[in-house]
Amino acid sequence: MAHSLNTDETSQLIASNKVEGTAVFDMDGERLGSITNFMVDKRSGKAEYAVMQFGGFLGVGADYYPVPWQMLSYSTDHGGYVVDLDKDMLEDAPRFADDEEPAYDNSYNQQVSTYYGVTY
Amino acid sequence: MAHSLNTDETSQLIASNKVEGTAVFDMDGERLGSITNFMVDKRSGKAEYAVMQFGGFLGVGADYYPVPWQMLSYSTDHGGYVVDLDKDMLEDAPRFADDEEPAYDNSYNQQVSTYYGVTY
Repeated sequence: MAHSLNTDETSQLIASNKVEGTAVFDMDGERLGSITNFMVDKRSGKAEYAVMQFGGFLGVGADYYPVPWQMLSYSTDHGGYVVDLDKDMLEDAPRFADDEEPAYDNSYNQQVSTYYGVTY
Repeated sequence: MAHSLNTDETSQLIASNKVEGTAVFDMDGERLGSITNFMVDKRSGKAEYAVMQFGGFLGVGADYYPVPWQMLSYSTDHGGYVVDLDKDMLEDAPRFADDEEPAYDNSYNQQVSTYYGVTY
């Protein structure tokens, strides 16, 4: 079982099942939420999206927000990820409910990257 | 909770928590074992190691084998990963027990990549 393994974090690497649940902070160090899981390119092994939840923060705790991985910085101080996001930015951000998972096709990737102003 | 989310796989992406548990096959399509979890570079988001278990296959089911991610190919036919590994190659392969997780430092990375003949 994945979660019986204690290996979780070194200075450079972190276990996939530890990323799941890792806290996410804003630029002021306020806790925004946490990473539910992340979407990995099957072949290259590159994380493309962190799927985040912002429980309570926006009053829409049940929704999932796919955020381009490149927007995340890892902070050893916080022991978590930092993103340059705030409530205003998240208000209209791409999100989905539990039973409405996106296809992550070209059109969706384009929509998300355009919203955040990053290159997919 | 990570595992309440149903999003798991599209043509290009796969959810981190679905990779955990994904089967691994040899070049003949025989099931070798499965991926326990994977070690990700905290900053780049790149998977560096798939940590595999080969339950029963080598009679050392409890051990974990960190295999460089670049050795994995994803097979849509199998719905899992294929690696060019066999019993002989795994007999002396780097492995660890539950309470002996490696530091994944430069020396360890070198040891693993040298063993498998890949570049870290």
